[in-house]
Amino acid sequence: MEAFNYYNPTRLIYGVDKQQEIGQILKGDGIDKVLMVYGRSSIKKSGLYDEILKVLDTQGVEVIEHGGVKSNPVLSHTRLGVDLAKAEQVQAILAVGGGSVVDESKAIAAGACMDEDVWNLFTGTKPNQALPLYAVLTLSATGSEMNSGGVVTNEETQEKFSFSSPYTYPKVSIVNPALTYSLPMDYLAYSAVDAITHVLEVYFTAEAMPLMKRRFIENIVLTIIETTERIMEQPTDYDSRAEFALATTWALNGLAAIGVKKYGFPNHMIEHSLSALYDVPHGAGLAIVLPAWMKWYSNNRPEVFLRFAEQIFGLNTADEGIDALEAWFRKIGAPTQLKEMSVEQYDIQEVASNALLTSRKWGMSDQYSQDVIEQVLRLA
Amino acid sequence: MEAFNYYNPTRLIYGVDKQQEIGQILKGDGIDKVLMVYGRSSIKKSGLYDEILKVLDTQGVEVIEHGGVKSNPVLSHTRLGVDLAKAEQVQAILAVGGGSVVDESKAIAAGACMDEDVWNLFTGTKPNQALPLYAVLTLSATGSEMNSGGVVTNEETQEKFSFSSPYTYPKVSIVNPALTYSLPMDYLAYSAVDAITHVLEVYFTAEAMPLMKRRFIENIVLTIIETTERIMEQPTDYDSRAEFALATTWALNGLAAIGVKKYGFPNHMIEHSLSALYDVPHGAGLAIVLPAWMKWYSNNRPEVFLRFAEQIFGLNTADEGIDALEAWFRKIGAPTQLKEMSVEQYDIQEVASNALLTSRKWGMSDQYSQDVIEQVLRLA
Repeated sequence: MEAFNYYNPTRLIYGVDKQQEIGQILKGDGIDKVLMVYGRSSIKKSGLYDEILKVLDTQGVEVIEHGGVKSNPVLSHTRLGVDLAKAEQVQAILAVGGGSVVDESKAIAAGACMDEDVWNLFTGTKPNQALPLYAVLTLSATGSEMNSGGVVTNEETQEKFSFSSPYTYPKVSIVNPALTYSLPMDYLAYSAVDAITHVLEVYFTAEAMPLMKRRFIENIVLTIIETTERIMEQPTDYDSRAEFALATTWALNGLAAIGVKKYGFPNHMIEHSLSALYDVPHGAGLAIVLPAWMKWYSNNRPEVFLRFAEQIFGLNTADEGIDALEAWFRKIGAPTQLKEMSVEQYDIQEVASNALLTSRKWGMSDQYSQDVIEQVLRLA
Repeated sequence: MEAFNYYNPTRLIYGVDKQQEIGQILKGDGIDKVLMVYGRSSIKKSGLYDEILKVLDTQGVEVIEHGGVKSNPVLSHTRLGVDLAKAEQVQAILAVGGGSVVDESKAIAAGACMDEDVWNLFTGTKPNQALPLYAVLTLSATGSEMNSGGVVTNEETQEKFSFSSPYTYPKVSIVNPALTYSLPMDYLAYSAVDAITHVLEVYFTAEAMPLMKRRFIENIVLTIIETTERIMEQPTDYDSRAEFALATTWALNGLAAIGVKKYGFPNHMIEHSLSALYDVPHGAGLAIVLPAWMKWYSNNRPEVFLRFAEQIFGLNTADEGIDALEAWFRKIGAPTQLKEMSVEQYDIQEVASNALLTSRKWGMSDQYSQDVIEQVLRLA
């Protein structure tokens, strides 16, 4: 087992109506003024926006609003949030939304304590502090509610980059699984694909992994598959929503990766370029990239791909396992071919060139050259 | 899924020779003077004692020693530790040892900040602060390195009671699995039994549990069984030691219990009386109590006991599963009958009366009366 250093101080609160506690929590931490970061119209339609404002008002917490976060959050909007947080001297950031809102909020939380441009976070600057971050999650997928990472796209340079810092773990994340009842089914599918990919990247690329960790990951994949199917039949099945949510949190809160020998995130590396260039939903892009990458990569770890087929789908060959996952993605309504993307035209070379930027940033360019990335994309 | 509030800020550092980092870690946290709490002779024999003193000296951290913690830590020694911590005005507690040392250290860390007697922690006083606690673990079993609880026996009253507080999570716990190479095999067996019991108490008593959580627990039990057998064949198999250690940490760091509906710790409740009265090793006591309790209890959750038999041992009935666990305890050298305890005579009535104290304290006395506890013990 590899040496590791695990630290995750996020307080995770799950349960019906738990979002109503956010006012008391902020007040209890001595916070009188927050920047509330949120997306577009969904929290206004659902009534959550009014509910949050009300509980904050009851506790006398002043709110500065920063709405309009995009699904693939962008740098220009992040910069506006940083400026607002500084100008208004807020004491904390409150993210109300899904993974994109939490990701942008992390960048704002750190950016508000920096003199430099916030993009520097994504190109190498290590922050030495951040405003405390609180989250009310409305969509379970990315795991951002219990990790320290964030991804933002620089629209000018078309770079979709990530950063992480020990200062940007949410202090408290509240998950009320019932808030996801109204999520459109295609977004549920993309969320499922995202969480499955988070753990399968580690599962397949790790140079070594204790059996306990392998079973831990298989458990998460099985849980996502089972609960997604139950939710599609009955969208208001609370227990399935909650179990799905917890599986997505566990998929990227560090538990899957501790003790695991060297691993990478090649599918995220490639997909980030699809969403940077064509603004496709991240989970949809992953559903396209992952099966293709698995076909390209499976000979590197034949025993792991065979185990995957057996444990997840009860099948007897690596290829059947890959096909079964691809078929399941299609079954839940996720695209699995590049041509299914809702973009007029795409350019594999351009995607690969863009992905190479991340490949270099993540130190993966020995294995993932322009040529290799194009090979994977052609399989999609 | 039940609502939950999960918070675990312990930094967990695993790896070969990681204990050598403790000096820098303390110094980095601004700590110049610690109370070093440890057990009897084993860390002196192994050289760990000298090694720790050396790295602390290199960093200029002054050490006040509090050795002699017993395997079932006792109140009188805990009080001495509190007095010493206060008199010497140490800034932190450094536990070097197994679960007993960490448990006593938690009580000292909180007791050093209290005006009242430290025993009050165990009878109802909620501390509002504690000295920061650091741990170098030498025996993986109790999970105390990543939770906030501690158990201490009051020798005068023969009460073995527990406490927990949000202030007594270790700030940093260092686990070098190689430090356990020299552990006697009977203590490895007791450790395995302890960790298995931690998760099975939840598994069997929970009124409801998501399937993901059930599989999570089964994974821990399977891992303990597999790695214990490998370690008994090859005590210096690092990977098995490390995987065993991580499974024991995960067994009681809160992960197994989140989202689970009402559960209890009846086996710990009963066993604490065996070790309070007869000073038997905790894991040995659990190996005696657990199979008996399973036989007494299995009709309450027939489907869970059947699943246990199938998933852990590949067997087809609940009774076979219980027998298989009992046989495995015997195989690894743990006692499974009261008469195997190395005490001259024991008194089931006295044990049950003592256990009733904990039963009442834990709010379990509706189900676990004197009579019921005696019934369970007679099955042992």
